[in-house]
Amino acid sequence: MEKTKVAIIGLGTVGSGVARLLLDHGDRTARHAGRVLWLEKGVVRDLKKGRDCDLPAGVLTDNVDDVINDPTIKVVAHLVGGLEPARTIMLKLLESGKDVVTANKALLAEHGPELFDRARELGRSIAFEASVAGGIPIIANISTCLSANQIVSLHGILNGTSNFILSKMSDEGAPYATVLAEAQRLGYAEADPTMDVDGSDAAQKLAILAQLAFGARVDWKDIPRVGIDKLDVADVRYAKQLGYQIKLLATADLVDDYLELDVSPALVRSGSPLAEVSGPFNAIRLKGDAVGPLFYFGQGAGQMPTASAVVADMIDTAVGRTAITFNTLELWSNRQARVTTAPNDAAKAKFYLRVMVKDTPGVLAQVATVLGKHDISIASVLQHEPSLMEGIVPLIIMTHEASEGDAARACEEIDKLASVRGETVRMWVRG
Amino acid sequence: MEKTKVAIIGLGTVGSGVARLLLDHGDRTARHAGRVLWLEKGVVRDLKKGRDCDLPAGVLTDNVDDVINDPTIKVVAHLVGGLEPARTIMLKLLESGKDVVTANKALLAEHGPELFDRARELGRSIAFEASVAGGIPIIANISTCLSANQIVSLHGILNGTSNFILSKMSDEGAPYATVLAEAQRLGYAEADPTMDVDGSDAAQKLAILAQLAFGARVDWKDIPRVGIDKLDVADVRYAKQLGYQIKLLATADLVDDYLELDVSPALVRSGSPLAEVSGPFNAIRLKGDAVGPLFYFGQGAGQMPTASAVVADMIDTAVGRTAITFNTLELWSNRQARVTTAPNDAAKAKFYLRVMVKDTPGVLAQVATVLGKHDISIASVLQHEPSLMEGIVPLIIMTHEASEGDAARACEEIDKLASVRGETVRMWVRG
Repeated sequence: MEKTKVAIIGLGTVGSGVARLLLDHGDRTARHAGRVLWLEKGVVRDLKKGRDCDLPAGVLTDNVDDVINDPTIKVVAHLVGGLEPARTIMLKLLESGKDVVTANKALLAEHGPELFDRARELGRSIAFEASVAGGIPIIANISTCLSANQIVSLHGILNGTSNFILSKMSDEGAPYATVLAEAQRLGYAEADPTMDVDGSDAAQKLAILAQLAFGARVDWKDIPRVGIDKLDVADVRYAKQLGYQIKLLATADLVDDYLELDVSPALVRSGSPLAEVSGPFNAIRLKGDAVGPLFYFGQGAGQMPTASAVVADMIDTAVGRTAITFNTLELWSNRQARVTTAPNDAAKAKFYLRVMVKDTPGVLAQVATVLGKHDISIASVLQHEPSLMEGIVPLIIMTHEASEGDAARACEEIDKLASVRGETVRMWVRG
Repeated sequence: MEKTKVAIIGLGTVGSGVARLLLDHGDRTARHAGRVLWLEKGVVRDLKKGRDCDLPAGVLTDNVDDVINDPTIKVVAHLVGGLEPARTIMLKLLESGKDVVTANKALLAEHGPELFDRARELGRSIAFEASVAGGIPIIANISTCLSANQIVSLHGILNGTSNFILSKMSDEGAPYATVLAEAQRLGYAEADPTMDVDGSDAAQKLAILAQLAFGARVDWKDIPRVGIDKLDVADVRYAKQLGYQIKLLATADLVDDYLELDVSPALVRSGSPLAEVSGPFNAIRLKGDAVGPLFYFGQGAGQMPTASAVVADMIDTAVGRTAITFNTLELWSNRQARVTTAPNDAAKAKFYLRVMVKDTPGVLAQVATVLGKHDISIASVLQHEPSLMEGIVPLIIMTHEASEGDAARACEEIDKLASVRGETVRMWVRG
């Protein structure tokens, strides 16, 4: 049987999983690739560090040049985190004639244009299924399976850490800080969870999906984003009473040829597939103009789900499918963007508002008047008993459909009312 | 831009949808294929019949030889229903050097070995995404995206007609016959719905998926199957009271290297993703040993969802991805089966039983004794008030895990008890 030599750079959690699939399940990869994927080298930073897999003698090395300078190695799983030296290593791999498979979404989000351009120039490919939604093969599904469609909307739970924390806040009524500490203890959140909980990670993934699904040219930093780190558990509770779950949603909606992108905690109706995604899972619901609604659910991270995506990419690359697909992908190419990203201002949706007000007569009328002035009509109001704060009560308002701009301006004005305390909490209601 | 000439044979509902995607959205297919998919011929049986799409002059013909004898046509969407002349036409297409895309699952289920062998001999390919689960790209997902996995279980709602009927029975409490008539009126069930409602259609699809996912060699007629056509709405109601929905499930489970296949109405816990699939939708939940659980949901039939799958296959075929994949697929090949299909007897699960009994003291004890004798323990019992039938009451039993064989034997014995009337209803409980 034919043999394709491959290498892994980085034998951390995911790299060890990839090595195990290649070494322990060679029959499986051989069957799907029609050839053996032969693990020639595994590159680590520290040879002495213990790891999660046993490599045959001669495979392990701490010198990345052992891969770069070996012309017989054709496909490389690039599992180096961070931006540098990850970027330099990927460029060297491409320049030495290797096709690359990566799980490094931050690297693609920051240096995608340079890396993809270079790969195209050199006639090489970069596969990146593992960079978004872990085990859910959403990259392949959008790139090839749905190629007859114009995707018109895509809403995803793309950050498992945030979803784990939100599920716990909802189930246990515990505040963010308590649940975060627990998530860190359980290994569902990193010591520095900033990128996960502030929406950056989800925005980086959304930027990749938006380029694939809509041909948008978007820098992840330009996507409006709010994380869960400022979320009050009270809102999780009120949402639940109203029949909703709060999820950190990354959304892309095509409205009149403009693409609206957003990452923020949003209300999703309890019982709907997205609302029922709990714990460290990911899910994506999308709508194509031919296929209609599609929903995907699976593990968004973890050793073996991510390794599953990496190895599938290695097989696709070894057999030549990736090369074909890569050439028709527009990702970060210089081709003109097919859609324009709209100022989020025009995006329309229903809103959840929580206004903290002095419990005095007429305050609801004042708030309603401001909303009306900005063309926002009220669908329902929940007014709770006075809270512990003397005489201050939350006024929970669900609006009918309104534009983001109108809602923002209305809230600004509401916050200036004499009977209102603090800043109004505002979230989208996404079906 | 390069041009690949294609043809459509059969311009019914799906064929017209395919023509529309090719003609109205050529930019889209061109972008994904890196070439134009040029519709050269559309073959119909009756030129005078009205159809759902306008073809340019010279494209429409009633002579299939206009396609077969045109060596410039490379890819053909074969959308001819039934077995003959569908089989003969597909063979002629392959023999004249064309790659074929089909949605005809019955044809593959009956003549798969012959057609796939012939394609392999001739160096041609057959793509069939549209043959299972309509718009859900489950064929591509199993064939390529999950290639690093051994799939260990796959449970699907694969027949939209049955699911539509079951949803209505559950929501409205209406009996099967009433709902079937309504489904026929609404176009969700055909005039002769037999294959849909007796489980045959789901079994044919399951046979295709079992070959792809498990390398099983199985004739769909050998898959144990029960349809919804004998289902009593009372059981739908009792299941609901117990917190379950009844779904027509096609299941493949790998247990100790044996593959257990089954098509039958089964209980699925309310609130779980499969249970919440209502109306004419399809869904598949599967588990891979690396990727873990995955869940797919989408439209299982209909013009544009099916056309979406056909056109994606046409693009994959035109660019060469299908040729690569087809050669590594084992579907209906002579390669040895990787798994043995187990006698369903050994399959283990929880069961729902409804025993119609004379409302006399001691009858529950008698039934429980028989179950105990066959190693089946009871998880819960629901006993209802006497029904309209004088003194006859339903005894609803949920068991703990037991083998299919034991359950079948126990029920046979229960049915012989003097105080039992009619045949015991028995269904799997699938999580």
